[in-house]
Amino acid sequence: MEITTSMIKELREATAAGILDCKKALEASGGDLEKAKAYLREKGLAAAVKKADRAAEEGLIEAYVHAGSRVGALIELNCETDFVAKTEAFKELAHDLAMQIVAIKPLCLTPEDIPPDALEKEKEIHQTQARDMGKPERITERIVEGKLQKYYQEVCLMRQAFIKDDELTVQDVLNETVAKLGENIVVRRFVRFELGG
Amino acid sequence: MEITTSMIKELREATAAGILDCKKALEASGGDLEKAKAYLREKGLAAAVKKADRAAEEGLIEAYVHAGSRVGALIELNCETDFVAKTEAFKELAHDLAMQIVAIKPLCLTPEDIPPDALEKEKEIHQTQARDMGKPERITERIVEGKLQKYYQEVCLMRQAFIKDDELTVQDVLNETVAKLGENIVVRRFVRFELGG
Repeated sequence: MEITTSMIKELREATAAGILDCKKALEASGGDLEKAKAYLREKGLAAAVKKADRAAEEGLIEAYVHAGSRVGALIELNCETDFVAKTEAFKELAHDLAMQIVAIKPLCLTPEDIPPDALEKEKEIHQTQARDMGKPERITERIVEGKLQKYYQEVCLMRQAFIKDDELTVQDVLNETVAKLGENIVVRRFVRFELGG
Repeated sequence: MEITTSMIKELREATAAGILDCKKALEASGGDLEKAKAYLREKGLAAAVKKADRAAEEGLIEAYVHAGSRVGALIELNCETDFVAKTEAFKELAHDLAMQIVAIKPLCLTPEDIPPDALEKEKEIHQTQARDMGKPERITERIVEGKLQKYYQEVCLMRQAFIKDDELTVQDVLNETVAKLGENIVVRRFVRFELGG
């Protein structure tokens, strides 16, 4: 199948990936837009994994306070060089993440950051529910695992659906930016204040 | 001594207090500008103490990120009503405090918030120094107390000199705003992020 410029344009608009990357992705996917998106996502992940152990100590501090000033967030987003920190793509990621934190209220970055007590409590709730419904132990385990994955998607920033495109997780968006900018990118810390919260 | 409008104007510009309050302060101080300022400060303190146990659950979330995006702060400033939260004076206080936090790096709000370990360590340093200089115990105590007061002025937001007027502490400025707006005002929490910090 021939890859036309209008197909490349569409993929570029959907993913913000480079022209060459889009062309490659479409070729590898036989021109299927959805498959090409998945291809790019995997490529982003591969790039992110490859760069994940590189020191990231530059970056930006970004704040977002929602209209009305009743809720706001502060975030530190790290990359490797001041040059990348000043690119529009990096600034946009920092801004989007600050907005995400305000809108979707993550409690922590990744499942590893959930306090053991909170995780144990969450597990117990679902175990008790499944057992009360008379489920056998093996099924209970699977139900609890499923519920925990859902819980991670709720409370962990990296697992949440991205506010600007709910087909992607925040981790996907970060990986895409890593692939695009060629540097390791890390959300170092964030905080969210809500009035009286 | 006659209190002229130009004297009132000068005091108003220095303190942002109301015309009537300035007139009273100047009358009580025999027209002495510095004494009148102290009078207003005490009045602010009295008003603040009187209102300190009133519930403050409205207010603003305010952020400040310094040019260059390498350091920023997020603050929750509480008052009693949404009406006061929307006044220019309250917004200005929230903004000034966020800037203060970015510029002067407080670690906590008041001396009571200093972790006991950190306080004990600070005490020990000065005790050892004073004893090494051969000071008697009674003098050592006084030296340590003086050093601790200085330490509070460094690390506690409420004790710091105000960035826009170093004759006032942040607590003085807050008290003045309480007196002006007639509501209890509380800095509920703040956080400061510095790149790689």
